Amino acid sequence: PKGRPTISSDDKAYAFSIGLLAQEDFGGFMGVGQRGSESAGNFNKFTQNARRLRLYLSWRYKDWVVNVTPDFGSSSVDGTVGLFEANLNYTGLHNTTLTVGYFQPRMEEDSAERSGAFEFLERPTIVDLVRNIAGGVARFSIGGEHYEKRWLVAGYFTGQKFGDRNSSTNPVTDSQTGGVFRATGRPYVSKDIDVHVGVGATAAFKVNQTSNGRSYTFSDNVEVPLGETKLLTSGALNNISQIWAAGPQFGFRYKKFLLKGEYYHVGVQHNNAATTANLPSLNFDGWYVAANYTLIGHGRGYNEKIGAFTTPGVEYDFDPAKGHWGALEISGRWSVTDLRTSGATIKSGSLIQADGETGGNKQTVWQGGLNWYPNQHIKIMLDYTHFSVSSARGVSTDLLGRNGNAVVGRVQAAF
Amino acid sequence: PKGRPTISSDDKAYAFSIGLLAQEDFGGFMGVGQRGSESAGNFNKFTQNARRLRLYLSWRYKDWVVNVTPDFGSSSVDGTVGLFEANLNYTGLHNTTLTVGYFQPRMEEDSAERSGAFEFLERPTIVDLVRNIAGGVARFSIGGEHYEKRWLVAGYFTGQKFGDRNSSTNPVTDSQTGGVFRATGRPYVSKDIDVHVGVGATAAFKVNQTSNGRSYTFSDNVEVPLGETKLLTSGALNNISQIWAAGPQFGFRYKKFLLKGEYYHVGVQHNNAATTANLPSLNFDGWYVAANYTLIGHGRGYNEKIGAFTTPGVEYDFDPAKGHWGALEISGRWSVTDLRTSGATIKSGSLIQADGETGGNKQTVWQGGLNWYPNQHIKIMLDYTHFSVSSARGVSTDLLGRNGNAVVGRVQAAF
Amino acid sequence: PKGRPTISSDDKAYAFSIGLLAQEDFGGFMGVGQRGSESAGNFNKFTQNARRLRLYLSWRYKDWVVNVTPDFGSSSVDGTVGLFEANLNYTGLHNTTLTVGYFQPRMEEDSAERSGAFEFLERPTIVDLVRNIAGGVARFSIGGEHYEKRWLVAGYFTGQKFGDRNSSTNPVTDSQTGGVFRATGRPYVSKDIDVHVGVGATAAFKVNQTSNGRSYTFSDNVEVPLGETKLLTSGALNNISQIWAAGPQFGFRYKKFLLKGEYYHVGVQHNNAATTANLPSLNFDGWYVAANYTLIGHGRGYNEKIGAFTTPGVEYDFDPAKGHWGALEISGRWSVTDLRTSGATIKSGSLIQADGETGGNKQTVWQGGLNWYPNQHIKIMLDYTHFSVSSARGVSTDLLGRNGNAVVGRVQAAF
Repeated sequence: PKGRPTISSDDKAYAFSIGLLAQEDFGGFMGVGQRGSESAGNFNKFTQNARRLRLYLSWRYKDWVVNVTPDFGSSSVDGTVGLFEANLNYTGLHNTTLTVGYFQPRMEEDSAERSGAFEFLERPTIVDLVRNIAGGVARFSIGGEHYEKRWLVAGYFTGQKFGDRNSSTNPVTDSQTGGVFRATGRPYVSKDIDVHVGVGATAAFKVNQTSNGRSYTFSDNVEVPLGETKLLTSGALNNISQIWAAGPQFGFRYKKFLLKGEYYHVGVQHNNAATTANLPSLNFDGWYVAANYTLIGHGRGYNEKIGAFTTPGVEYDFDPAKGHWGALEISGRWSVTDLRTSGATIKSGSLIQADGETGGNKQTVWQGGLNWYPNQHIKIMLDYTHFSVSSARGVSTDLLGRNGNAVVGRVQAAF
Repeated sequence: PKGRPTISSDDKAYAFSIGLLAQEDFGGFMGVGQRGSESAGNFNKFTQNARRLRLYLSWRYKDWVVNVTPDFGSSSVDGTVGLFEANLNYTGLHNTTLTVGYFQPRMEEDSAERSGAFEFLERPTIVDLVRNIAGGVARFSIGGEHYEKRWLVAGYFTGQKFGDRNSSTNPVTDSQTGGVFRATGRPYVSKDIDVHVGVGATAAFKVNQTSNGRSYTFSDNVEVPLGETKLLTSGALNNISQIWAAGPQFGFRYKKFLLKGEYYHVGVQHNNAATTANLPSLNFDGWYVAANYTLIGHGRGYNEKIGAFTTPGVEYDFDPAKGHWGALEISGRWSVTDLRTSGATIKSGSLIQADGETGGNKQTVWQGGLNWYPNQHIKIMLDYTHFSVSSARGVSTDLLGRNGNAVVGRVQAAF
Repeated sequence: PKGRPTISSDDKAYAFSIGLLAQEDFGGFMGVGQRGSESAGNFNKFTQNARRLRLYLSWRYKDWVVNVTPDFGSSSVDGTVGLFEANLNYTGLHNTTLTVGYFQPRMEEDSAERSGAFEFLERPTIVDLVRNIAGGVARFSIGGEHYEKRWLVAGYFTGQKFGDRNSSTNPVTDSQTGGVFRATGRPYVSKDIDVHVGVGATAAFKVNQTSNGRSYTFSDNVEVPLGETKLLTSGALNNISQIWAAGPQFGFRYKKFLLKGEYYHVGVQHNNAATTANLPSLNFDGWYVAANYTLIGHGRGYNEKIGAFTTPGVEYDFDPAKGHWGALEISGRWSVTDLRTSGATIKSGSLIQADGETGGNKQTVWQGGLNWYPNQHIKIMLDYTHFSVSSARGVSTDLLGRNGNAVVGRVQAAF
């Protein structure tokens, strides 16, 4: 990116750069009281989190690029150090990047935007759930991405995530394999209008096997990165043969106004051979709709190289004496995730229950937010969140359903 | 600092630098035998520790500076990787730095010196105890520092430390808030004389709450960074409403001789509403006096930008053929920390005991040391320590009091 | 190395560089079925591992060089972050490097080659076992290395490894001390022929002491870096006073053909004073022979500065349109490690058993591999491994001996 420190050899064969994405969040929850005899759960009144502290190191020799990105931040409870990516890329083919190694393969428009350009602090829950099936951060991937002016296509064969086998108590004895696919197009483009359509699909052909067999649990917090108790859950899903997800993505820009939405359907196949009960397939889904308006500065534009909308532009750096205020945008989002196993009919031998007795539950999150950019490298965010989660059997903090609110700010620096 | 690798854009709007502070210690303990049936404790005869391995990464764009500093060293038992700081700073106001993010807010002259410039391997115990109440390394801070030629003032509102909530067994459900304040002045300045006076104050308005409530234990090793058993303790303090500390700092330079001292008083308020017993407030205190003389090279000078004395200067790099020996200084320090709860009168319902039956104890440390600087980037240290710690009820390694000695060397490189 | 990003001051007094060694492995095991009622062990059919992700940071001021190298990879189960080295070096003496700090002191030809230049994915097992007695990665070392055109000698006094004391359950209360020594020569040198001879020796004068006393277990996987169950073991050796190892190394190059071999004998002395039984000394040994031929490109040459053979050279970067294929080499290796305690005669009071009832076992590994270098910075490896391990009493996965196969590829980038 522009402004990233870079050194090159005189003949341009070599280049090295060191970039940064630093995001630190602070805020808390209000009105998240438990009902009845539920346990309260962890909803901190005021706390902080280093969400991302990524050091983007990149070495290039001719058409070969190596990216290694340590991350000193954490999704919601900081204090550990990990890896965002470490991969080798070949860029010798036209508009194409071939990649092998630990990487974040992207299938959703929201992920394709890159985490420094988000409208809100966090991705919608359904995006977080489907991207982690066979993609997500530091996933071993072999594949590539190709873009043209009006379309983009990407596909990756994927394996484990960095650290998946790093458990002393219950190590993985057979690793996951899967895939991630994305295709997008721009059916209409003009100065004032951008239309984005696309489809994303992913599958885990087999999930990690431990001494507990092949299990998986969908679970998420309420789109707030402060380490709060996860209320949304599918319940533990056992004897899994395959998990897949697919869905459409849509975006529409009119001048400085941007409307986006994505829908994903998730399917879970059980390995019936391994059990006496004839377990049914399960189906979950979720979606979000987000609206955004840039009050000051250039509006969010479309980047054909990543098939996604990008961050607003600052016309003049913040300088109150000259009446320059950088850029400012306002956003709203409605996000629904339904992990209730409608149609499941088998009760014994697994967590799947009769209708109306689901192990999973449903979450709705409303968010509104302001982002201020004093210059192109600094971003100050403030998000208000209202969430509502239905009851989940077996989750002691959510026996009776729960709703509440959060206010969280973020300071971001990117180079 | 001078000699730190830096690259800048031609228009000076951008700069990036990557610095280092590497400190590796080696040494051991002598004559630390247990008395009676005490357990021996861990006083290694000869071992090593990577004290600090900090990579100072800094990105600047105009008046905005972002600092991210990973640390591969550890206070006394190396092997983990963490974060020293990650913060965003605005330097657009005259002689002022405004800071938000993980930072080390400083209230003591000894901390203000920076850890690469210390006279001894470690800070005095009382400084270590009070700085960690609401400051210390990687503390989330919002505040600023302003300096002039004859004075400096700094104040920060603070939150959790990086990683505070990162416990799988007993997570923090309500995070700490606090503050750190410092004001210093230079009442007399001449070529041969510097007088430094100041005051530091700090408070934790509430401390981290876990399933055990709000608790705190003051504890420290004997000012030696080799992972030895901590003998000094206040005992566990429960049901805490607030902890504060404040005290004066003093420094006097005459030519190459430097005399310093600081005193801090610590107060602990209990939350009596939460208990049946009417718990008293507790009071601890500690101080140190240190003398230093520079045998070869420039003496320790005063840096008005940090309100503290700094490291000696090397006139000529080490080169025995030319009779150049770099710089050499000798130091001595007397450090006392008293965690006995004098005046406490309540025995049941808490650890506070009748007079003469304190849960806490008292530590006295005498140190002498030599520091050799072959050039401005390299420092070789050798410290001798004699310590004496009074008995602590309930500490199996210190039932009868303990004294002993340590000899520890350090190799330091700083860029 | 050539191509490593470096910045220098105009007067050449200062230099800073940031290099990389990235190795990511993927592959799996075939035909490693358990026999009888053994447990299967962990032999993943297909998985991945970030073997080395080292960031080589180096600051130089005149004759003083500081190296700090974080490592985000892991020997066989990735997910943790550690340190490869952090040391201070003085290079002011002719052809000599004096070193203090965390370092990898090298005594074997195979280690001296550096891990980016290996013929195979992993060192032979016997090399891995002896180098870790008192050397290995991030070992605290004080010593030096001196080379001339026809010989090289190196010696280090060593302490603990980075993180050795970092155990919350069973910390080290008295740290290890030891030493590592190497001497090599080149009795015959011509354009087509290089002859390398040498000797390596090491000893742990005392090993780390924990609450279990001074114990040590030799153990290794089957020279494959995918986290597989370690089948080879000496059994736990207790009450150890000293461990030493020594042996010869030999290399012979004729044009593009290279033949290498090393043999090491390991001796373990018990501390009989501490036990009632009169424990005997134990003796283990192992060796390997490796043959290599460079099919395309410059053959492996000899580097007198490290006393070892190095990686093949690429004449022209990979460019199929011009008929350039980079470099390609083929290798084969036979590696035997015998940890059976022949001659041990005492049965009670320790693990040492009567002849024929050894606690340790024997491993033989055959490997063949291809390495392709599209350019000097990129290396693609493919290794086939066949292993055979004899039975070990008390190892549930190897009660009846085991053999099997593995196929593993590696993608490497080095700057």
